[in-house]
Amino acid sequence: MRVYLAGPDVFVPNPLARGAALKAICARHGLTGVFPLDDLAGGDPPAWDALPEAFRIARRNEAHIAGCDALVANLTPFRGPSADAGTVFELGFMRALGRPVFGWSNAAAPFAARTRAAFAASQAADGTWRDAEGMLVEDFAPLGDNLMIDGAIAASGGVLVTSDLPRSQAWTSLDAFAACIEAAARRLKA
Amino acid sequence: MRVYLAGPDVFVPNPLARGAALKAICARHGLTGVFPLDDLAGGDPPAWDALPEAFRIARRNEAHIAGCDALVANLTPFRGPSADAGTVFELGFMRALGRPVFGWSNAAAPFAARTRAAFAASQAADGTWRDAEGMLVEDFAPLGDNLMIDGAIAASGGVLVTSDLPRSQAWTSLDAFAACIEAAARRLKA
Repeated sequence: MRVYLAGPDVFVPNPLARGAALKAICARHGLTGVFPLDDLAGGDPPAWDALPEAFRIARRNEAHIAGCDALVANLTPFRGPSADAGTVFELGFMRALGRPVFGWSNAAAPFAARTRAAFAASQAADGTWRDAEGMLVEDFAPLGDNLMIDGAIAASGGVLVTSDLPRSQAWTSLDAFAACIEAAARRLKA
Repeated sequence: MRVYLAGPDVFVPNPLARGAALKAICARHGLTGVFPLDDLAGGDPPAWDALPEAFRIARRNEAHIAGCDALVANLTPFRGPSADAGTVFELGFMRALGRPVFGWSNAAAPFAARTRAAFAASQAADGTWRDAEGMLVEDFAPLGDNLMIDGAIAASGGVLVTSDLPRSQAWTSLDAFAACIEAAARRLKA
């Protein structure tokens, strides 16, 4: 079974070493990890030659996802209270293909609490929380991120695994990833 | 033609009025706008009764998207340099269904510049930009957001329309939306 490894792991200082580490954990559980920086089997289609590099990368990642049986997303908050935008796009893409999606995060605090703290939100007279721009802060307390993300993971039969770690370990610890892969392997073989 | 109106417009102080305003602009161009807060035709399936409210909302939005011919996403930066996570998920979902996706944003500065400014990024010896956590800042200068988002819009035949406005008008101006709907209507009738 092939598992697409979505996440901002492509942005760490040594992304190829990170990809190898993630794939080794997958292999221990009988899964083949596909990292976004991998080449496509057979290379890129010639029709993509004229595309700018960024758009070739986007097409390649879409093709990787379409060729996998499941997706495991690193949902550790990235430059804000939510996960990396590219990762979230890919999770939505796989969800629409009807295959299982899983998440892991090195932050355990719920999305609502993280957002309220980061944006100095205050409670309006009607009880809703609003940020400084007046925009509603979703208040679905146990969720780990926007409800579309947690909802897709639950609806697809996936799980979200979190580690309660100091922020300094956000981009290094793979404990939650390993636990998520173990759960994904169990689910995919069931 | 039915167009799903993805965006943090559901978080403004009066989201029903916002939805009505967006739908009125769609109607002027012969399109039917579907707002995330709309009921499903026929109501929710009884199988969803046991779900928590957040997960019912997620299922409903997925069903709305599946029932539309195209998606138009409000990609105005939301609590960080990227678009709202739920919106990005939905854009990825529709892209995987193979239908056109469009974007509009009330910020015109490219993603790379916005991210570097918001996260005090610095340039490493190898020329790459890194944030304070050492994570790479994508440097594809003309793109409006993460390359998966711009890539999907381009690959699907959509467009991204931006308005160069002060941040105080981020959640009020509908000029970019109106221009985006006009482009979407042209494309969908072609």
